[in-house]
Amino acid sequence: MNKNEALDAVFNLRSVAIVGVAPGDEGFNTGRLFLNHIIEYGFKGRIYLVNPKGGDVLGLKIYPHLQDIPEPVDYIISCIPAPFVAQLIKDSAAKGAKAVCLFTSGFSEFGTESGRQMEREVQRLAQSTGVRVIGPNCLGIHSPKASFSFAPDLPHETGPVSFICQSGGNTMYLVRAAAARGIRFSKVISYGNACDIDETDLLEYLHRDAETKVVAAYIEGVKDGRRFYRALQELAAVKPVVVLKGGTTGAGARVAASHTAALAVSRDVWMSVLDQAGAIRVDSLDEMADMLVTLQYMPILGGMWVARAGVGGGAGVLATDDWDREGFSLPELPEQVRQAFRDALGNDAGTILSNPVDIPHLGFGHQAFRDALTKLSEFQGIDLLVFHLPIRGIMLSLAIAPILIDRETETIIRLHRESAKPMAVVAHYMATGEGWHFAAKYVKDFYEAGLPVYHSIASAAKAIDRFVRYHRNRTASPQ
Amino acid sequence: MNKNEALDAVFNLRSVAIVGVAPGDEGFNTGRLFLNHIIEYGFKGRIYLVNPKGGDVLGLKIYPHLQDIPEPVDYIISCIPAPFVAQLIKDSAAKGAKAVCLFTSGFSEFGTESGRQMEREVQRLAQSTGVRVIGPNCLGIHSPKASFSFAPDLPHETGPVSFICQSGGNTMYLVRAAAARGIRFSKVISYGNACDIDETDLLEYLHRDAETKVVAAYIEGVKDGRRFYRALQELAAVKPVVVLKGGTTGAGARVAASHTAALAVSRDVWMSVLDQAGAIRVDSLDEMADMLVTLQYMPILGGMWVARAGVGGGAGVLATDDWDREGFSLPELPEQVRQAFRDALGNDAGTILSNPVDIPHLGFGHQAFRDALTKLSEFQGIDLLVFHLPIRGIMLSLAIAPILIDRETETIIRLHRESAKPMAVVAHYMATGEGWHFAAKYVKDFYEAGLPVYHSIASAAKAIDRFVRYHRNRTASPQ
Repeated sequence: MNKNEALDAVFNLRSVAIVGVAPGDEGFNTGRLFLNHIIEYGFKGRIYLVNPKGGDVLGLKIYPHLQDIPEPVDYIISCIPAPFVAQLIKDSAAKGAKAVCLFTSGFSEFGTESGRQMEREVQRLAQSTGVRVIGPNCLGIHSPKASFSFAPDLPHETGPVSFICQSGGNTMYLVRAAAARGIRFSKVISYGNACDIDETDLLEYLHRDAETKVVAAYIEGVKDGRRFYRALQELAAVKPVVVLKGGTTGAGARVAASHTAALAVSRDVWMSVLDQAGAIRVDSLDEMADMLVTLQYMPILGGMWVARAGVGGGAGVLATDDWDREGFSLPELPEQVRQAFRDALGNDAGTILSNPVDIPHLGFGHQAFRDALTKLSEFQGIDLLVFHLPIRGIMLSLAIAPILIDRETETIIRLHRESAKPMAVVAHYMATGEGWHFAAKYVKDFYEAGLPVYHSIASAAKAIDRFVRYHRNRTASPQ
Repeated sequence: MNKNEALDAVFNLRSVAIVGVAPGDEGFNTGRLFLNHIIEYGFKGRIYLVNPKGGDVLGLKIYPHLQDIPEPVDYIISCIPAPFVAQLIKDSAAKGAKAVCLFTSGFSEFGTESGRQMEREVQRLAQSTGVRVIGPNCLGIHSPKASFSFAPDLPHETGPVSFICQSGGNTMYLVRAAAARGIRFSKVISYGNACDIDETDLLEYLHRDAETKVVAAYIEGVKDGRRFYRALQELAAVKPVVVLKGGTTGAGARVAASHTAALAVSRDVWMSVLDQAGAIRVDSLDEMADMLVTLQYMPILGGMWVARAGVGGGAGVLATDDWDREGFSLPELPEQVRQAFRDALGNDAGTILSNPVDIPHLGFGHQAFRDALTKLSEFQGIDLLVFHLPIRGIMLSLAIAPILIDRETETIIRLHRESAKPMAVVAHYMATGEGWHFAAKYVKDFYEAGLPVYHSIASAAKAIDRFVRYHRNRTASPQ
């Protein structure tokens, strides 16, 4: 089976086998974790378990061998030690499986000759049998439309973003962090050492995949630079591709080699490859989440002129520094807008009647203030209106802060609905675990209303600058 | 009364009057907020309320005039409009008050001639009457030892850090964020426009204050550059001073002028003044919190050689890039350390037996693994051992994650107690409000055990690099 067909089959899987799950009385092991999460996520297909010891777990029979399973199996997850994997591939082929996900590690990433040899053998078997291999050293696929996932607390809804990731931990973090800001995924794959299905196969697959509108990729190394570049360039011509390269420093590249056996390529080469291919480069997983939020929720901007409104003069000073550093400008407001704020707010403490507009605690609750904001949103001199909520930079306790933040949220969402001006929200200054927990509800309100939400002015400015440059480059270059 | 005496008196205040608090049936206003917070924080002294309307609130009588209060008042908080403030200063002098905090805004920061005139008059009255003025446009003092605070959710314990801040919102955010990571404060002052007590007065005061061991400052502008430089240099010679300058960009400086009437000085001048004076410069409030954590919890480091241990290979790759960018090195581990990890972990999935050490989920629970960590901590080739906990980058749900993280925390704290090697913890990958909430308990466990805690590898590396350079410069320069 070719790789595209195999990927189609596993993202629509109807049956899975976990090989190496421990019987019920042996408790916690990784096979058991996969099982728990597949059940909890609500997988509707068949789940089969395999372990030579037999037995059962959670009422499911454990088959001694893959061949003992009476029905077809689409997708097989290997949690057995590396030396047993080659035989598993052969058994999987006999069983007619489409793909095997090797959670198993201990291959080329261990830096030993035996590890490399075992990986070459797995690769050879994948090619000769046609059972495609994901990994080794990975978590495999997360596919909401098949109600299938490898981990808890990942979103159940499908969405326009697909994410390919060479690290399991980074996969889980990015999906969870982006989900909390309104990003939903079509296809997610943690693909580890990429001995068979590799980054280029995945880019090509996602290029053709109609459900994927945006691609995110965490990559430590590529197998074939020329093929990768061509696939990336072709993909980036039709869909935004956000790339985080892990191991860009000399030291990081050495670690990447021992993590996923990635080959070292200099940072400069990588950066110019990504730029020339038209990808959007980011430097951390948080920047990747910022970029996905921007691509999904931000309309195309006419330029870099920004107005900012929110509580807190000092936050406004630092915000202005942050916008300025990324090349944005905060224009003076026209007298009619200033007058509208003056009418609404009077000489209330802490108010600055310029841009950034510093709003007193209760401003958002008043109609006159809403009218002034409407005037601000109609100001032709700005391309973007940004609201910031300094969650724990206000005098109210969390118990009564909703007095302020409910109204602010409601006012912003209403204005966003009624206005054509691009808008964004920065929910920042969370300060504590309680502050973050408190903010989550509002973040959800905002993204459900279609607003991009960021967690610092600096990160918002960086992502929006990249977004503006991305669209400028697309307009400038012949596609 | 001179400024030092006044500051001493108000940081030890025994009575406060809030002028401009609304009677009970008028509900929510800023005077009422101050009152609520002063009561909630547990102030043991006398609280007096003033409003010409009279009445009462929360069972406290509201006096029509300051003069009607039968007893002495140390500290007066003004929540009345700007045009009434000059008379309040005179009344405060008649009453024998030590200082007046002007929450009131509408002075020079409004950019109007009348605002500037009123501020000059306040300044003149402060000098002529000896009643010192804090502000205008500020929150005033937070003094745990006097059980006095202006806002909820600020820590009650005293500590070695004092913080002077020209923005009220930034004051509250920094104190809350740093408190969540184990920083406690001696004296905090939000000082606004600084028309009487200014940044230099405060630096001089904290220089002499034996309870203050570390000074943090958020400054938008200074009144007298020469005097400021001298005070900063003298203070920095004996105590670490962490400075965030707001309004360093041209645009930010214009906003600072309308926030606290700060004069614009170029970024380059500022940066070289701060460097030459021996201050530690930071670029955001989060970096300030990182720096305070480092100064309090990190022992002096011998150099820049780091070992990192934690769950997750991909996180390790990105971590290595981050350490490398800040100039740290991750040395190869000696064979005896590698062998100890090999003995402890075997061929368990996801393990890298090099530096960074990638630990499988349950590694921290085993004695053999703890022994290997002890060997790692004894390795002379590293100056610092960093643990990272990718809170939401693991396969466990929050409900069962304590299985892993309890043991990891316990193991790290035990090792830290038994070893002389400097250590740090990065609790990162929180991903969601729930993740941050969940992490808070562990962060507290760590700082209570004396460990510095950071929320990203990049921010840890940046702060620790500044810390190393700070100590190198101190050793190099003649003090």
